[in-house]
Amino acid sequence: MDKHTDFIDEIIIEDEINKNFVKKIKTYKKRIQTTYINVINKSSKFNIDKGEYVALSFLDINETYTKNALERLLTYNLMYYFQKYLTNKENKILVVGLGNRNIIADALGPSVVNHIDVNNHLNITKTKLAALSLGVMAQTGIETSDILTSITKEFKPDLVILIDALATKSMKRINRAIQLNDVSISPGSGVGNFRKIINLKSLNAPLISIGVATVLEAYSLIYDTLNYLLDNNILSNININKLTSEILPLENNYFVTPKSIDEDIEILANVIARAINKASKEWENEKVFH
Amino acid sequence: MDKHTDFIDEIIIEDEINKNFVKKIKTYKKRIQTTYINVINKSSKFNIDKGEYVALSFLDINETYTKNALERLLTYNLMYYFQKYLTNKENKILVVGLGNRNIIADALGPSVVNHIDVNNHLNITKTKLAALSLGVMAQTGIETSDILTSITKEFKPDLVILIDALATKSMKRINRAIQLNDVSISPGSGVGNFRKIINLKSLNAPLISIGVATVLEAYSLIYDTLNYLLDNNILSNININKLTSEILPLENNYFVTPKSIDEDIEILANVIARAINKASKEWENEKVFH
Amino acid sequence: MDKHTDFIDEIIIEDEINKNFVKKIKTYKKRIQTTYINVINKSSKFNIDKGEYVALSFLDINETYTKNALERLLTYNLMYYFQKYLTNKENKILVVGLGNRNIIADALGPSVVNHIDVNNHLNITKTKLAALSLGVMAQTGIETSDILTSITKEFKPDLVILIDALATKSMKRINRAIQLNDVSISPGSGVGNFRKIINLKSLNAPLISIGVATVLEAYSLIYDTLNYLLDNNILSNININKLTSEILPLENNYFVTPKSIDEDIEILANVIARAINKASKEWENEKVFH
Amino acid sequence: MDKHTDFIDEIIIEDEINKNFVKKIKTYKKRIQTTYINVINKSSKFNIDKGEYVALSFLDINETYTKNALERLLTYNLMYYFQKYLTNKENKILVVGLGNRNIIADALGPSVVNHIDVNNHLNITKTKLAALSLGVMAQTGIETSDILTSITKEFKPDLVILIDALATKSMKRINRAIQLNDVSISPGSGVGNFRKIINLKSLNAPLISIGVATVLEAYSLIYDTLNYLLDNNILSNININKLTSEILPLENNYFVTPKSIDEDIEILANVIARAINKASKEWENEKVFH
Repeated sequence: MDKHTDFIDEIIIEDEINKNFVKKIKTYKKRIQTTYINVINKSSKFNIDKGEYVALSFLDINETYTKNALERLLTYNLMYYFQKYLTNKENKILVVGLGNRNIIADALGPSVVNHIDVNNHLNITKTKLAALSLGVMAQTGIETSDILTSITKEFKPDLVILIDALATKSMKRINRAIQLNDVSISPGSGVGNFRKIINLKSLNAPLISIGVATVLEAYSLIYDTLNYLLDNNILSNININKLTSEILPLENNYFVTPKSIDEDIEILANVIARAINKASKEWENEKVFH
Repeated sequence: MDKHTDFIDEIIIEDEINKNFVKKIKTYKKRIQTTYINVINKSSKFNIDKGEYVALSFLDINETYTKNALERLLTYNLMYYFQKYLTNKENKILVVGLGNRNIIADALGPSVVNHIDVNNHLNITKTKLAALSLGVMAQTGIETSDILTSITKEFKPDLVILIDALATKSMKRINRAIQLNDVSISPGSGVGNFRKIINLKSLNAPLISIGVATVLEAYSLIYDTLNYLLDNNILSNININKLTSEILPLENNYFVTPKSIDEDIEILANVIARAINKASKEWENEKVFH
Repeated sequence: MDKHTDFIDEIIIEDEINKNFVKKIKTYKKRIQTTYINVINKSSKFNIDKGEYVALSFLDINETYTKNALERLLTYNLMYYFQKYLTNKENKILVVGLGNRNIIADALGPSVVNHIDVNNHLNITKTKLAALSLGVMAQTGIETSDILTSITKEFKPDLVILIDALATKSMKRINRAIQLNDVSISPGSGVGNFRKIINLKSLNAPLISIGVATVLEAYSLIYDTLNYLLDNNILSNININKLTSEILPLENNYFVTPKSIDEDIEILANVIARAINKASKEWENEKVFH
Repeated sequence: MDKHTDFIDEIIIEDEINKNFVKKIKTYKKRIQTTYINVINKSSKFNIDKGEYVALSFLDINETYTKNALERLLTYNLMYYFQKYLTNKENKILVVGLGNRNIIADALGPSVVNHIDVNNHLNITKTKLAALSLGVMAQTGIETSDILTSITKEFKPDLVILIDALATKSMKRINRAIQLNDVSISPGSGVGNFRKIINLKSLNAPLISIGVATVLEAYSLIYDTLNYLLDNNILSNININKLTSEILPLENNYFVTPKSIDEDIEILANVIARAINKASKEWENEKVFH
C-alpha cells in the first residue's frame, strides 16, 4: 500500500527532471507558486501520461489578495488550454462536476457547476458552456465514466473540463493546491473509492482536468506519523506500508479534512467557476504562454 | 392558449369513454380514488397516446392513513407495470428524477432519486436499481431528453422510471394527484418551460412515468377566474383564452404553489421512493391486476 | 380582504404627499429608481409608522450593470442608516435572516446570512457583525419575533438588520423591488402567514429592515384580474374583495412566483450581503445623505 | 494534550465502578449494547457530573433490524427521562440541534430538527414540541450557549433536548455509538472548537443531551498510532502526548470521518427524530425503568 496522490508535483521531484520532463517553477508575488511540468514521454515508473501539468500552490485562500491572484492565474492557464484545443469556429465546452454534493469535502465539482454561466442552449456566444453534475457511483449505481462517455458520444463537445476533489499526500496541502492538466482524472480519488480513469480515449474529446486537494486518506496520516518517527530516529527498521495496513486495515475508508472545509470549498468553487466563465469569454482576445 | 395539463383524468371526461378508451374508477377506503384509463387507440383529438394510465387522487397527504394507503397503491401499480415489462432474467431499472432541485415545487424527481435504494453496482439482487438526477436545461444547457437518450443507449436499462413535478389545471389538485403511465412524460411541464417529450422512441426502452401535480401555471389561475365569472353569469360573451393572454402575456413565466410545498414534497418523494424500492424487491412474489 | 403589501411606495401615491410625508424620487442611470419617503408623523390611515423609507426598483437583476449599481446604492443607504444609529465606540450589528430556507422564494433572509462576513467573535474590527437565521414558526413552533426578542435582550446589539422576502401587490415588481426602512418588518408576509410585527419596541434596539418582493399572494392575482376587467369596462358593479374571496377562499394559502426564482434569489442575496459587509467596513469613511 | 471524548463509557472502566458509579450493561439481541451509568456523586477525577448516562453501541446502522431496534431503545430511554422530568400538566419540550448544517459530519443536530413533528404553536397536544437549529459560532459570531440561554429564559421549556455530533476516542465507534444523559453537552466537540458547556445551570431547565460519535479528531488518530506502537513493543519510552503535538500542532484543526458519512447521518437523524416524536406522544402510556 502506497500513499495515493493525484498531484504530479508530489511525485516528480527535482532530480528526476530529464529528457522526459520539463519542469518550471514561478512564484506570483510570494503568494502563489506555479509548477509547470511538461511530460514529453509517458513515464511508466511514475504512471504519468504525456501532457501539460500545472500545479498551483498557495497558503491562505481566505486572504483576498490570494483569492484574486488565484482567479487570474487559473483564467490565464485555462486560456492557454483553450487556445491549444479550441478552433475559430463555434465551440462547445462541457463542464463536468465530479463528486458527491452531500459531503462538502467532495462537493467541489458540483459547486463549481452551480456557478457556471451555462449558455449552450441560448445560442448567443461563439464559445458555449454546458455543465453537468453526475453524482457518484454510490448514488447512481453506474460508473461515472460510463455515464460521461455516453453523453460525450452524442453531445460531441469540443472540450471537456472535469473538476474533482482529490486526495493529497500531505495534510499541509489540503485546500492549498490545485492541479490542471490536459491528460486525465480519476473520479472518486477524494472521498469515495477509486473509479475508472477518465481520459481522451474514454471521452473521445480533449479534456482539461482541474483537481483540488481537499482531503487526506486516513491511512496517509498514519503513514506520515510513522515516517516522522523514522525521520527523527525515534523508530528504525520498520516496513511502513505493512505497519500502516496493520493499524488501519485497507477496507476501512476514512478521510481527514479541516474544520473550515465548508468555507474553503465555497471560496474555491467560486474562484474556479469565475475563471472558467471568464476564460470562455476572453480566450481569443490575447495569446497566452506557459 | 389552452390551459395546459398532463393529467389524463383532467382531459377525458365520462361521456368520451368509448371504443378508444376503457375507464374504471375505484375508491380506496374513501381516501384515495384511482382512475384507470386504458387507451386502446391513440387519440388525435386529445393528443393522447396508446397505453395504460393510472390517476390517483387524494385529499390530505399529511394524514398517516392516506400516506400509507398511497404507498401501498403505488407499490401495487408499479408491480403491475414491472410484471408487464420485466423478464425472468436479471433486470436493470433506471430511475430518473426530472426537475430543478433548487426550486422545491420542481424538486420532486431529484428528491425521489435521493431515497432510491440504488444497488445496480452491487450485484446482489436480480432486479437492479440505478438512479439519476439530470437537472434542467437552464442549469445544464442541454436538452434533458438528449442527455437521457445518450445514457439509455449505452446503459440499456430494461425499464426506465421517470419522475417529474407537473402542472395541473386545478388548484384543488396541487399535491393531491399522481399519474402513472407507460407512455411518455414532458419534462419541465411543472416549473420551467416545456421540453422535448420523452417516450419509448426517444429512450429505446419501456418506461413508466410518475407525475405529481405540484404547481398551477399562473395563467391557469386567471383562466379559472374568468371561467368562474362565466359559470356564475357575472360575465358573458368573452373569449377566455384571448382575455387571459391580455392580462398575463404568455412570455411571463409564473407559477402558483401552496405555502406548505416544502413539507408536501418531502412526504410525496418519500412515499414514491419507498413504493419503487418495495416494488423492485417484491414484483415477482404475487401476480397483480388492474 | 384587501390586497396585502409591505411596500410603502405601493401605498402612498403622489397626491397624498403633504405635511406628514416627504417624498423624493431619484433615478440612477435609467436603471434604478429610488423613492425616499420620510414619514414625519405616523399615519393611521395608511397604518404607517414614523421613519425613513427607501424603495429601490429596477428592471433586470441579471444585468451586470444593474447588479453593480444596486450593490452601490444599497451600500450607500446602509451607510446612511449606520451613521444615524451607530456611535464612535465599538458597535455590534446583528443581521437576522427571516424566512424558510427550504422554499427558495422565502429563502432570501437565510441566504443573505450565509454570505455575511461574521466577525463578532473575532474581536478584530470596531464594527462587529453577528448573523442568525431563525426559521419560521411552522419549523420551530415558536413565534420568530419572540425568539428574536429573547436574543436581543441578552446580546444587546447596537443595530439589528432584518432581511425578509415580502409579498408585493404587483406581479411586475417580483424580484424587482427592495425596501429599506428603520421602522419595522412583518415576518412571514412573503411565504407563510403573517406573524407578529418586529419593531424598535419588540427588539429594544434600533433596526433596519430590508424587504424584497419575491412573491405575490394568489388572491392578489385574482384581485388584479377582476380589477383589469373593471378598468377595461368588461365588468362593472362588483365587489372585488367579496368576489375574490368567493373564488379563492382565504384559508387557502397559495403564492405566485417566477420560474427563475432560484437564480434571482441567489443574485439578490449576494448583492444584499455584499452591501452589508461593505457598509459595515466603510460607514465611518465618508458622510452620506439622503 | 489528552485525547478528548464525550462518551462516559470511554472514560469509566470496569474497575472504577464503586460507591460513586452504578454501571449496568444489557445486550439487545446481540445487536445493541446498552451501558447504564448512574453517577451518584460528581467525580472530579473524571470531570463527570452527577446524573444518569446511557450509552448505546451497535455495529451496523444500515442493517434494518439494528435500525428498528435502536429506534425502540431510544424511544424507551427518552420515555424514562420524560417520566423523570415532565409533569401531568401541559409540557413544552424544546429540541435543539447543535452543529453546522453545511458539514455533513456535524449536521446531525440540524437534521434531527428537520424531522421533528413540531406542534408547540398548534395547541392540539398536551406535550408540545418546539425545535431550533442555532448554527455554530463560526456562522453566527455568537456563543451558541449564550443564544440558547436567552431563548430558554423567555420560552421557559419544561425540558430541553440537545442533539450534537460528538468526537469519539476510537475510530471503531464512529457512527456506532449514541450517548444520552440528563447532565450536559459541550457543543462543537464534534467538528468545530470546544465551546461553553450547556447544562441545567446555563439553561435554567432540565435537559437531555443526545450525542452521536461522528468524527475522530485527527490527533486522536496519531495518538492511537503511537499507542499501537507502544502496545506492540515496536516503540518504548516515549511521551505520547508530547510526540502527538509535535507531529500535529494543536492549532491545526482536522477531523477524520468515514466515506459513508452522508448516508450514516441521514439514517441516524431519522432514527433519533422518530424516537423523540414517538416518546413525546407515548411517554404517559406505560411506566418504564432503567
